[in-house]
Amino acid sequence: MAQPSATSLNEAIAQVAADVDALFDELLAVPDDPRQRLFEAMRHAAIGGGKRLRPLLVVASASIFNVARSYAVRAGTAVEAIHVYSLVHDDLPCMDDDDMRRGKPTVHKAFDEATAVLAGDSLHALAFEILADPATHPDPFTRGEMIATLATASGPDGMAGGQMMDLEAEKSNFDLPTVTRLQALKTGALIAASVEIGAILGHVAPEGRTHLRGYARDIGLAFQIVDDIMDVEGDEALAGKALGKDADAGKATFVSLMGLDRAKQQAEMLVEQAISHLASYGHEADLLRAIARYVLERDR
Amino acid sequence: MAQPSATSLNEAIAQVAADVDALFDELLAVPDDPRQRLFEAMRHAAIGGGKRLRPLLVVASASIFNVARSYAVRAGTAVEAIHVYSLVHDDLPCMDDDDMRRGKPTVHKAFDEATAVLAGDSLHALAFEILADPATHPDPFTRGEMIATLATASGPDGMAGGQMMDLEAEKSNFDLPTVTRLQALKTGALIAASVEIGAILGHVAPEGRTHLRGYARDIGLAFQIVDDIMDVEGDEALAGKALGKDADAGKATFVSLMGLDRAKQQAEMLVEQAISHLASYGHEADLLRAIARYVLERDR
Repeated sequence: MAQPSATSLNEAIAQVAADVDALFDELLAVPDDPRQRLFEAMRHAAIGGGKRLRPLLVVASASIFNVARSYAVRAGTAVEAIHVYSLVHDDLPCMDDDDMRRGKPTVHKAFDEATAVLAGDSLHALAFEILADPATHPDPFTRGEMIATLATASGPDGMAGGQMMDLEAEKSNFDLPTVTRLQALKTGALIAASVEIGAILGHVAPEGRTHLRGYARDIGLAFQIVDDIMDVEGDEALAGKALGKDADAGKATFVSLMGLDRAKQQAEMLVEQAISHLASYGHEADLLRAIARYVLERDR
Repeated sequence: MAQPSATSLNEAIAQVAADVDALFDELLAVPDDPRQRLFEAMRHAAIGGGKRLRPLLVVASASIFNVARSYAVRAGTAVEAIHVYSLVHDDLPCMDDDDMRRGKPTVHKAFDEATAVLAGDSLHALAFEILADPATHPDPFTRGEMIATLATASGPDGMAGGQMMDLEAEKSNFDLPTVTRLQALKTGALIAASVEIGAILGHVAPEGRTHLRGYARDIGLAFQIVDDIMDVEGDEALAGKALGKDADAGKATFVSLMGLDRAKQQAEMLVEQAISHLASYGHEADLLRAIARYVLERDR
């Protein structure tokens, strides 16, 4: 099977990043009234940062089913809005208390805490505004399915629930199954939702999404294992944020529980397994395959 | 025109409050895992408090069009989840820094700040989970319209935008038009969405909602004027929260800009005007009329 070159993956990443930035820029036009500061904080958080993995996954998954790119970009931007709001709230002093994110000051540092809370809340609402808009897909059933998927993936049974477990991790001694569950919720749920939303846009019935779900589960877990490895081995300048914080906080991670070598092997195994879930697809899934390999190599 | 007795309004309030509590209780069953604290914080915020004005408005508006009560209660609970999340975040130390809410300690006091941020975020997601669920309405188009309405009313062009203006109000000298706009966003948008969602459940086309929108705009403004009056004249024990904070913070309010007497006249005039918007409806709108009068008398 032909593999897309690193160049074509890089092109796909750059194109998705440009499209997401352009859509955020359009949606977050700064009004000439006292809400200016709120929109500026939302723009600071949302525009020009990150590898846009989640929108990339929506686009890659949707492209298997020949979905119009503009739909996938809009839906992907909705998922990214959720991801960005979670970063803004996660960075708050009462949460992880981070000063830098994506190489820039965090929102509460560049603005203030109250503005950061509201900017996060506003990006959260924006995600559902985007998905509920007929421009994101003309079929209301498709929009509704995407909204249900994203709300569940981001709420207490998904991302927010995982963040709560993460807060508890400082006080508890979590074992490997519990850390795996924590990460499946905290980062896995939104990554899985990204792939799922691509299939929803492609009108794939739930029973036809089994392989894609397996793929998403495996890359989500690999992604987090690599994150834990980078937290130990990474370069703060490249990462654009502080590293080593989990270890300092005494939290159990994949690296602390498995050791560096086994963690690396496990991540590689998961990526191979993720790709094997795509065996029933041809070249149309090559971008998803390239993304799986990229998860191992990203500098985030 | 016969008016519903105070008793029937009180019965409607009690019934809606019981239904909303029962639904939150069902949706927020505490899991036996490390997310327990998150669900307990959500329950602390969501269950057993407030007059449930927004669900009451959804139920009253929907009842004009003979909508099944269970749909209206579910949709109303979604609006209430948004309202409750906004209270949890608003009470945070970096925002209004309040210790008491609805006669109980605020979430960050009863739990901690990080849990309050996550509980608010989780209630935010829950609102859209409820609306996207076919149990809330079998027609996906109706669900999508409710979701778009709620997302817009709660985001930067609605409630969150109004909260940002409210933060700026401490630094600026807002005039009456600006304070009116602030309140139209901060509390008016969600009140208007409640009435609108009742009409959406009733399959009323947008052009048929003009009178209801006029009603909602007027009671929303009256509600906030009464709030400002109570902030000066109210009883903290009855209100279940600290009062007089706006005046202390030097914020312009309807009372500071108009004086107490004119503010009271204005609120009464708006309630009469709200009721006059319902002239084309018969007894089926009596509950909405009773709610308008109640806005003047509530102890919140």
